[in-house]
Amino acid sequence: MQDFFKVVDIRTVYGHLQAFTPVDTEVVATHQATGRVLAEAIDATEDLPGFSRSTMDGYAVRAASSFGSSEANPAYLMVTGSVTMGAVPDITVGPGEAVRIATGGMLPAGADAVVMVEHTEEVDADTIEVYKSVAPGQHVILAGEDYPEGATVLQAGRKIRAAETGLLAAVGRESATVYRQPLITIISTGDEVIPTAQVPGPGQIRDINSYSLAGMVAEAGCRPRPLGIVRDNFEDLRQACRDALAQSDMVILSGGSSVGTRDFTIQVINSLPDSELLVHGISISPGKPTILASVGGKPVWGLPGHVVSAMVVFEKIVKPFINRIHGRADLFPGSRGIPARLTRNVPSAQGRVDFIRVRLIQDNDKLKAEPLLGKSGLINTMVQADGLIEIDSDTEGLDKDIPVSVIPI
Amino acid sequence: MQDFFKVVDIRTVYGHLQAFTPVDTEVVATHQATGRVLAEAIDATEDLPGFSRSTMDGYAVRAASSFGSSEANPAYLMVTGSVTMGAVPDITVGPGEAVRIATGGMLPAGADAVVMVEHTEEVDADTIEVYKSVAPGQHVILAGEDYPEGATVLQAGRKIRAAETGLLAAVGRESATVYRQPLITIISTGDEVIPTAQVPGPGQIRDINSYSLAGMVAEAGCRPRPLGIVRDNFEDLRQACRDALAQSDMVILSGGSSVGTRDFTIQVINSLPDSELLVHGISISPGKPTILASVGGKPVWGLPGHVVSAMVVFEKIVKPFINRIHGRADLFPGSRGIPARLTRNVPSAQGRVDFIRVRLIQDNDKLKAEPLLGKSGLINTMVQADGLIEIDSDTEGLDKDIPVSVIPI
Repeated sequence: MQDFFKVVDIRTVYGHLQAFTPVDTEVVATHQATGRVLAEAIDATEDLPGFSRSTMDGYAVRAASSFGSSEANPAYLMVTGSVTMGAVPDITVGPGEAVRIATGGMLPAGADAVVMVEHTEEVDADTIEVYKSVAPGQHVILAGEDYPEGATVLQAGRKIRAAETGLLAAVGRESATVYRQPLITIISTGDEVIPTAQVPGPGQIRDINSYSLAGMVAEAGCRPRPLGIVRDNFEDLRQACRDALAQSDMVILSGGSSVGTRDFTIQVINSLPDSELLVHGISISPGKPTILASVGGKPVWGLPGHVVSAMVVFEKIVKPFINRIHGRADLFPGSRGIPARLTRNVPSAQGRVDFIRVRLIQDNDKLKAEPLLGKSGLINTMVQADGLIEIDSDTEGLDKDIPVSVIPI
Repeated sequence: MQDFFKVVDIRTVYGHLQAFTPVDTEVVATHQATGRVLAEAIDATEDLPGFSRSTMDGYAVRAASSFGSSEANPAYLMVTGSVTMGAVPDITVGPGEAVRIATGGMLPAGADAVVMVEHTEEVDADTIEVYKSVAPGQHVILAGEDYPEGATVLQAGRKIRAAETGLLAAVGRESATVYRQPLITIISTGDEVIPTAQVPGPGQIRDINSYSLAGMVAEAGCRPRPLGIVRDNFEDLRQACRDALAQSDMVILSGGSSVGTRDFTIQVINSLPDSELLVHGISISPGKPTILASVGGKPVWGLPGHVVSAMVVFEKIVKPFINRIHGRADLFPGSRGIPARLTRNVPSAQGRVDFIRVRLIQDNDKLKAEPLLGKSGLINTMVQADGLIEIDSDTEGLDKDIPVSVIPI
């Protein structure tokens, strides 16, 4: 028996996350910020909102004026005016008085609550009946209730979703400092691999990994730089890696599951200045022959050539490193799965973590996970898959009907 | 009591999905296809793979030559040559023979299985010991096993993930016909709303919805066209809507929760040619005063002005319509939630569907959902939220510790 790898577990691989540092930053317009990672903390420079405002269409009142009112015993209030949207009301609300106000209108002085128009009836031009009492503060957002002046509303390292983009606008930020989107070079290796445009002869297959991995880089919010195919040749591979390292923030080689190419990859990494081989083999399946090196402080990966293995390793192993160089505070987002029950027994070897592709099937009100047990060279299993389940290294297998957690892919 | 709406339930709103048709199509390079929606069916024009290939480094053999072998009683095979990667082997494997082969190599004539190198030992230059028997087909992907020639590998209407991008490359497609990314105009209304760049005076607030809704459009894989703020003025709003309809595939107005603006929105929609008001009020909270119209066959929305209401309605109501005009076959993807348990009781009114913002909290090995019950005008509750839970219209409320399903946002 030959042993090609010094296999380590996943935690050990994650232990290398801090060996890498985030990329530099740039300023983007707030309208371009969704999907980016904040590189600065954002403060509220004034109260948000800056004034107490109505959350309903109705009447601004002193809450006490409505106390005890009901359908049977309405309160009668005198309507003394209206609030104009976007303007400061020039009116004060006294006891027994009401001022018309629309959603978002500024609460007039004296008022501390809003009666919903649905709970009132106009008696005449100057008088309303109120059918329901309101508490002080009801149907009102107070000045500073969303965020008070000076509050830090977002921390650096935060992924900007739509809500955070809205918040940037709310605190007056037309732009924000974000981390640059990492540029990630993808190189396919293997003498049997040919470009998509060519018709494969016997023994040849088209380059899939350049496309699927570039797609995963894009889905991860980064910029893929697919370089195409490099032949299994030390000098060519070395030159390609040098160029890739000079021009991008991470390099992903794939292919090279065969002994020869793996050796090339290791030799090339060792030949580059300031290089350190960090991982050579991980106790996972698929994906055991994965390589991670640091070259000039940048991560260089050797992923398995099988399309499924490469994608699974990208999802579970590479992605946290992408998040790290992208400046994210949360390196393992989206790791909470969808619950389902297995449709059949799944065998698994002890001593390694198995990732099983599954398809989700709705069975009445139950969600079932059907394992897709095809070989890891078959892309159809990834195309059919909705997600992955993880079988930990202490488990020999999972039984039919057992609850599992499906990580969407 | 005044009734402004003719409130309908969510299913009735979804019943209008088929009133709209997908946008036109365009051809994109496969490397740009991730995230797009296929507008054509994709066929395999040849077997994938085109030949039987090894999935392991080892030796191509007749499986029968290995039968009965074990560590104690190895089989001895004669090594007659090697398979060159990417080339047709010029050798035939006979009984008792083995040919060196790397992962991805083409199986030579006569061989029907591969023995892993780990289960062999070289005795001399021409002989190996085999310690483990293999079955016919083992460690081999057969020609056409991934997809046979002529198979339809992807259907029109399919969202292209990384796996599907890889599959396009695998079947030789350098480009694909996809639906154009819908262009969606976003208009904020309200006299109290000012541009982000300005400092709000008393009674004024900055435009948030233009930013958060544009972010959600981008997250949904479409192109946002934020038009900024239009004042509460019939002619201005009408002109803005006409321009928006001429230039984009969907129009989203927000703001206008106040009676006056709502009336403007309805009046403007009614004034436009070929317009039909489809929905005016939905039995959901937040989001009741939502408007949907068809104008010239394009969806026009009037969303509530409160930032949370607008985002919730976008997520639950607008998105399926975006998927529809984007040509997706699956209009309700991602509707499977993450299971968690409520940290406290949540009240809910019968007769409407309530959407509650929640934050997910990991509590040892349990995931808890903490309701964020702030007013729907407060963006901080969306910024804190990890997702939404749905309380259906027949339920009065949910008790602490009850299992819930959290839809990520």
